[in-house]
Amino acid sequence: MGEFSFIEWLRKWQKRRKDVMLGIGDDCAVIDVSSDKACLITTDMLVDGTHFDLKKCTAQEAGRKAIACSISDVAAMGCQPTVAVISLCFPDHTPEKFARELYKGIWGISDTYGIEIVGGDIISGRSPFCINVTMLGRDEGLKPIRRSGARIGDAILVTGTLGGSILGRHLSFEPRLKEALVLNKNFAIHAMIDISDGLTADLNHILEESGAGAILYEDQIPVSRAAVELSKKTGCTPLHHALSDGEDYELLITLSKAQAKKVLSSGLFAGVTVSCIGEIVKGHGVRMKSSVGAIRLIRPRGYEHLKYKE
Amino acid sequence: MGEFSFIEWLRKWQKRRKDVMLGIGDDCAVIDVSSDKACLITTDMLVDGTHFDLKKCTAQEAGRKAIACSISDVAAMGCQPTVAVISLCFPDHTPEKFARELYKGIWGISDTYGIEIVGGDIISGRSPFCINVTMLGRDEGLKPIRRSGARIGDAILVTGTLGGSILGRHLSFEPRLKEALVLNKNFAIHAMIDISDGLTADLNHILEESGAGAILYEDQIPVSRAAVELSKKTGCTPLHHALSDGEDYELLITLSKAQAKKVLSSGLFAGVTVSCIGEIVKGHGVRMKSSVGAIRLIRPRGYEHLKYKE
Repeated sequence: MGEFSFIEWLRKWQKRRKDVMLGIGDDCAVIDVSSDKACLITTDMLVDGTHFDLKKCTAQEAGRKAIACSISDVAAMGCQPTVAVISLCFPDHTPEKFARELYKGIWGISDTYGIEIVGGDIISGRSPFCINVTMLGRDEGLKPIRRSGARIGDAILVTGTLGGSILGRHLSFEPRLKEALVLNKNFAIHAMIDISDGLTADLNHILEESGAGAILYEDQIPVSRAAVELSKKTGCTPLHHALSDGEDYELLITLSKAQAKKVLSSGLFAGVTVSCIGEIVKGHGVRMKSSVGAIRLIRPRGYEHLKYKE
Repeated sequence: MGEFSFIEWLRKWQKRRKDVMLGIGDDCAVIDVSSDKACLITTDMLVDGTHFDLKKCTAQEAGRKAIACSISDVAAMGCQPTVAVISLCFPDHTPEKFARELYKGIWGISDTYGIEIVGGDIISGRSPFCINVTMLGRDEGLKPIRRSGARIGDAILVTGTLGGSILGRHLSFEPRLKEALVLNKNFAIHAMIDISDGLTADLNHILEESGAGAILYEDQIPVSRAAVELSKKTGCTPLHHALSDGEDYELLITLSKAQAKKVLSSGLFAGVTVSCIGEIVKGHGVRMKSSVGAIRLIRPRGYEHLKYKE
């Protein structure tokens, strides 16, 4: 059993409350808090050696990343993050300076996005440094955008360029909050997700929730320079990295082709490229259309955190 | 610098949002979500080897405890918990059975208290098993009870019996949610906290937030049987354990002496003893009054999770 099948098991057996509008299985859960307002909630755990390497990055970068990941999850619902609580597990004998540097990173990005850290928990143990961020968001009259809304015939858009984030961008990325709010306010978005597991893996989450398939246009995938650079070391193609690497934290969006055209010509996303990379079709799974029109099935690849011993 | 001085540093430098009614430093933070409703939030991280020992307890007990601790935090504000998100870090090669057993414990107690698990995060790493629970609560028209409201002349009440939780009760305790809601609905509670760090340490949190001191009545402290049993092994007195041991998860309450009398004679707490153990006085710190009237200053002792290297 892996991470995703365990989540399926959880979804199947978890009892439901009436005020929970959206439970396990999306970027955020959505809770009904009053007649006209919803509260979004998302949680992310990051541990040294897996999500960052404190031998190679600073405490400040680790703190920034933890907050940025949660902002990206709220952005993926098209909503505004508001407050967060942070749990920290420090290895025994962590110097005070580390904690202060960590909070420099946390506060820097929190201030930029108007988020207050309202509480937390601090423990120590015989374990690597671990940080958990739970972030709340509000819908501001906007409808939270789910993974399950993709429709046959939708265009698939993606922000930015993809692949090779391991070379640095997984620490320094700017969550696409501004772009997500512009999209939700001005266009009829059907489905949205942030790319954390990898383009094909996260697209597959949308497809499974929406009961559809997708065709990607091979020559339209926005391959990053980092993907090209990384391919020289790994022997994989830059396209492979763009399709499979995790932690791009770009937005993957589906909406009608007419709306997609308006997005692409709107001029509302200055400084951030938006690409039309494919379309939603009947069926299931992801197929790839080459520049000469050949179509092949591709297996969704990406990072699955949990591999249980069978 | 220890845990509490680091929290002071955080409180001093954290910027504030307008919709945050109560930030860092209480059992929960309180967020204004609509004109008449508040959302409470609390987060707790538990790690194998510190908060439980998986060599001696089951996955089910560990899962139950993680949820019970968060329920206790919301109860300490006199409010109703609603939903939670859970992050899990499994050591590599954790068997699937462990995860399912864990969720048995999580769901068992969640169902009892009407809480839905709405989301989470699952990772794996080269680290001991770690679980983080973030729980939301709602005020239901009740005012969240803070640590800072204790007034000179208040009586100090405590539920249950204290000390020796390490012998088992730290895993099996029933959070005092029912009692906390009855107290908040029917009486004018000034301050409340749950005893997680230890009686004198948590009383001291109330005193520091309220700018007051306290006198405890030595012969009124409800010493548990476990404290007596533990004292035979440790050589400390049962009273020492009742005053200093952490993880009792009982409620510590201050309110006027007139209201305290009504609580004690109300008959609303069937099955749970409520004891008047002292009073709030001018000054600061905790003093102890013996049965013959002698008064001595006692140093708040209790568990401080974080000891930084200086």
